[in-house]
Amino acid sequence: MTVRLGANRYGKAETRLVHVAKDGREHHVKDVNVSISLSGDMEAVHLTGDNAAVLPTDSQKNTVYAFARRHGVGQIEEFALRLAGHFVQSQPSIHHARVEIEEYGWHRAGPHSFVREGGEVRTCLVHHDRDGRSTVVSGLRDLVVLNSTGSEFHGYIVDDYTTLPPTSDRILATAVTARWRHAAAGASSYAKSYEEVRRCLLEAFAGTHSLSLQQTLYAMAERALTTCPEICEVRLTMPNKHHFCVDLSPFGLDNDNVVFHAADRPYGLIEGGVSRDDAPDAGFAWE
Amino acid sequence: MTVRLGANRYGKAETRLVHVAKDGREHHVKDVNVSISLSGDMEAVHLTGDNAAVLPTDSQKNTVYAFARRHGVGQIEEFALRLAGHFVQSQPSIHHARVEIEEYGWHRAGPHSFVREGGEVRTCLVHHDRDGRSTVVSGLRDLVVLNSTGSEFHGYIVDDYTTLPPTSDRILATAVTARWRHAAAGASSYAKSYEEVRRCLLEAFAGTHSLSLQQTLYAMAERALTTCPEICEVRLTMPNKHHFCVDLSPFGLDNDNVVFHAADRPYGLIEGGVSRDDAPDAGFAWE
Amino acid sequence: MTVRLGANRYGKAETRLVHVAKDGREHHVKDVNVSISLSGDMEAVHLTGDNAAVLPTDSQKNTVYAFARRHGVGQIEEFALRLAGHFVQSQPSIHHARVEIEEYGWHRAGPHSFVREGGEVRTCLVHHDRDGRSTVVSGLRDLVVLNSTGSEFHGYIVDDYTTLPPTSDRILATAVTARWRHAAAGASSYAKSYEEVRRCLLEAFAGTHSLSLQQTLYAMAERALTTCPEICEVRLTMPNKHHFCVDLSPFGLDNDNVVFHAADRPYGLIEGGVSRDDAPDAGFAWE
Amino acid sequence: MTVRLGANRYGKAETRLVHVAKDGREHHVKDVNVSISLSGDMEAVHLTGDNAAVLPTDSQKNTVYAFARRHGVGQIEEFALRLAGHFVQSQPSIHHARVEIEEYGWHRAGPHSFVREGGEVRTCLVHHDRDGRSTVVSGLRDLVVLNSTGSEFHGYIVDDYTTLPPTSDRILATAVTARWRHAAAGASSYAKSYEEVRRCLLEAFAGTHSLSLQQTLYAMAERALTTCPEICEVRLTMPNKHHFCVDLSPFGLDNDNVVFHAADRPYGLIEGGVSRDDAPDAGFAWE
Repeated sequence: MTVRLGANRYGKAETRLVHVAKDGREHHVKDVNVSISLSGDMEAVHLTGDNAAVLPTDSQKNTVYAFARRHGVGQIEEFALRLAGHFVQSQPSIHHARVEIEEYGWHRAGPHSFVREGGEVRTCLVHHDRDGRSTVVSGLRDLVVLNSTGSEFHGYIVDDYTTLPPTSDRILATAVTARWRHAAAGASSYAKSYEEVRRCLLEAFAGTHSLSLQQTLYAMAERALTTCPEICEVRLTMPNKHHFCVDLSPFGLDNDNVVFHAADRPYGLIEGGVSRDDAPDAGFAWE
Repeated sequence: MTVRLGANRYGKAETRLVHVAKDGREHHVKDVNVSISLSGDMEAVHLTGDNAAVLPTDSQKNTVYAFARRHGVGQIEEFALRLAGHFVQSQPSIHHARVEIEEYGWHRAGPHSFVREGGEVRTCLVHHDRDGRSTVVSGLRDLVVLNSTGSEFHGYIVDDYTTLPPTSDRILATAVTARWRHAAAGASSYAKSYEEVRRCLLEAFAGTHSLSLQQTLYAMAERALTTCPEICEVRLTMPNKHHFCVDLSPFGLDNDNVVFHAADRPYGLIEGGVSRDDAPDAGFAWE
Repeated sequence: MTVRLGANRYGKAETRLVHVAKDGREHHVKDVNVSISLSGDMEAVHLTGDNAAVLPTDSQKNTVYAFARRHGVGQIEEFALRLAGHFVQSQPSIHHARVEIEEYGWHRAGPHSFVREGGEVRTCLVHHDRDGRSTVVSGLRDLVVLNSTGSEFHGYIVDDYTTLPPTSDRILATAVTARWRHAAAGASSYAKSYEEVRRCLLEAFAGTHSLSLQQTLYAMAERALTTCPEICEVRLTMPNKHHFCVDLSPFGLDNDNVVFHAADRPYGLIEGGVSRDDAPDAGFAWE
Repeated sequence: MTVRLGANRYGKAETRLVHVAKDGREHHVKDVNVSISLSGDMEAVHLTGDNAAVLPTDSQKNTVYAFARRHGVGQIEEFALRLAGHFVQSQPSIHHARVEIEEYGWHRAGPHSFVREGGEVRTCLVHHDRDGRSTVVSGLRDLVVLNSTGSEFHGYIVDDYTTLPPTSDRILATAVTARWRHAAAGASSYAKSYEEVRRCLLEAFAGTHSLSLQQTLYAMAERALTTCPEICEVRLTMPNKHHFCVDLSPFGLDNDNVVFHAADRPYGLIEGGVSRDDAPDAGFAWE
């Protein structure tokens, strides 16, 4: 029997970088977490431990810091593209670079003072290969939202294991992970695009009278796609964070959707993608 | 040899309650996590398993939900006092109740739509005993703040294990856990007090040119105590979240506090309390 | 512009099930976490909220518990196959089921007493579709291993951002996530296969004099594939948990790989797959 | 109004140290996490930022590594005592040192190969002050145990909020955090003592037919105290990890304690201490 090496990649994960830009007395901070994965001529290192084709992950980390000093960070998509391009272009043995960045937001509290926002984290996933192809996926995670009414659930399949009663009024709550693919790399203002997509997601969540979380998910993705021409595909992962209306009748109390138990596990998990008809092929964008 | 039962307590921890108040079409949500600890005549249950003095933790959970329906939640300190009082007054075997509540904030995004704030968590710790004594400690945790300059560190002890160079400019960053004791239970507007103390902590953090994190901690507590007459003692726990200026000289780059590595562990940990001269005795307030 | 629904799935995640089998006075526990994802005729629910094709996630959870009562749990791969088959066969609108299970081990401490093992978690990922195709991937995560010598790293690319010195002796440590695909579903003794693969991974990790973590990864996968004929592909994810030899020269001390700082972030991340030449097509096995 | 500094302490937390001892070809690893808190003449640093009395936390970290090189780690209690003594004796401004260490166990898998145990973590908390007083508390956390029968709960208070039915057979499961105070510092073999206490805790958990978790807690502490003369006080924190027997009657199935839902929150929390009659005063041992 023969075995063979399949898909593989390696790199430095979770390099934590804080960059301070100084505009006179007023400072600006960028707080990011950079994860790099490279692939290419990696047969030898796997089979014999010959590292001649390997750019050490330590050097990748150094590159992150050096590039931040030389070029600043700017929009995370741009920083990721710059890094990915560098690794592929400078090393013949590296055929493909994948760079993932998370950004943590900070509110200003003074000329050089900041309070960390604790809400959603902005993300990006960028690929670049030696044929010059680049893809950019932007996103966010941990955007926790809740509608306290305007959500129903009924008309579903009833089988031997059904005990759930239908409802015409429930809490709908989820922690949104959203990612959206740009139709072309480098063509957009990523900051403006991010604000627009985030606004669309929130408005569609709040504005949709929901008969199912799937319907809400689709409405959110559709709103972003029809509003933001620069993006061509949206993928959403939305746990259904169940809030159970507590039965207070043993205590002589009614409970018309006033008091809820917020449960941890299990939870529903709804995942789905929506794309434009004319979206270019995704290639390796989501890998 | 004889052994004897010492201090003990028991209760239901982390009851997750969401309360929806309806003001016409406009809803309001309260999202809290309630932990109860009771103590009293508990010799028998420990020594023989006789539960005659034990109010089950399941009933404690039910009480949380029933009280939320009957009275609403309101300020978490008030809800905690109401619960603590109930357990002690309704059960002769329960001599003391300790109630701890965390509150998670939500921004409004529509008449019945909300986005969870991800920043600091508001907290309280309340005690009530059968002699009618009550204590109230309010607080917050996970308030992450950063000054990108205005912080020095030098003049410290140099011993055989010192390698740290003195600095006149560094990042100062911490995740504040603050708790403050009210001089009297029930006398304050807890909502207003919370906003004031939080504002004092932030302003003193941002406004103090710091020679040590201890100095900043003291300034924060002092600001709160001198501004808010209703509180008499402040305790702060502040990890020094180190940001190391990266040495970029191997790459021919200077780095005058522009590019930092944000480290996880180890970290400094600074803890301290400040109180008013005329503070009443704390009793069991901090237990 | 037109948008269209793409790939989607939904289900109940993280149903926590403990099953107690009673063999006279001797009990046996199975402690698992079951996550189900279904897909099929889901256009209507996304576009209009019509739930006629939707089997509620609550019913999925009920099915997990009912099946555990009726059939026991047995090997997690078998339990997953049973559940996946049921959903697809009983509901015409469900075309595909994906079931993922984690199992937490327990040591015996008495006839009905157990101590939870805290090491690696056993996992499986099973797919079944309405054409009768099934795939089975078994695995483990959080198997933390360390070699205190027998690891080198040198001969790598040196570029403008290289500062890492080559080394002929370092600690090699990682937390292994391993998954292996069975050549055929249902053909194996999953318990025996699990023990064998785990043993191969450990022996190859311990027995490989390593010139790179990639070499070790490949050796581990190869050992499993050449030893266990029932599996045809192995995928490994192995963070390089860096242990830095501390420079103690400022204190007049040498440190020949005796005292290490165990770092958290950043870390190297090595991912790779190895398969047999005659492995059948993976299809949806890894999705 | 005047404010004054109260209790305070500072130090380096979570210094992660791995020590490799080499016995010919056979290596031994110690994997620990050291947290130091110092206190003393700290008025000036709080009030004016004068650091003259401050031993930097960075130097504390260096000391941990240097001492590990010079003396080895040995039993964590001994390493903690050595560090605590050093800080107090070498610096007049440091009046008191508190050292907390966690140790992570590893199984041997080869002469220089190891697999991390994932179960309980061994802990210690040591104090030393300039009057020469030392206290030693040993412990463990995350020892997860379960009895699948032999546990009842009935005869409790029934009030207006009681819905829980009494039971004569339930699962009893908890994650034990145990700490025990040594009657004298330095007098024991800490390794042997640890094994003995752990064995007592487990045997009493498994061997007690339980009418309440409090009864089990007391039995565990009592067993350790009556078996191990070197310890004088035991404190236990034991969450009641609820396992709910699932109602399967809607599906035509009985469920005589076979299938359980393992819940996350809320949970009962039982805390208690037991001590010998002749235990010396605890002083600052538990602070």
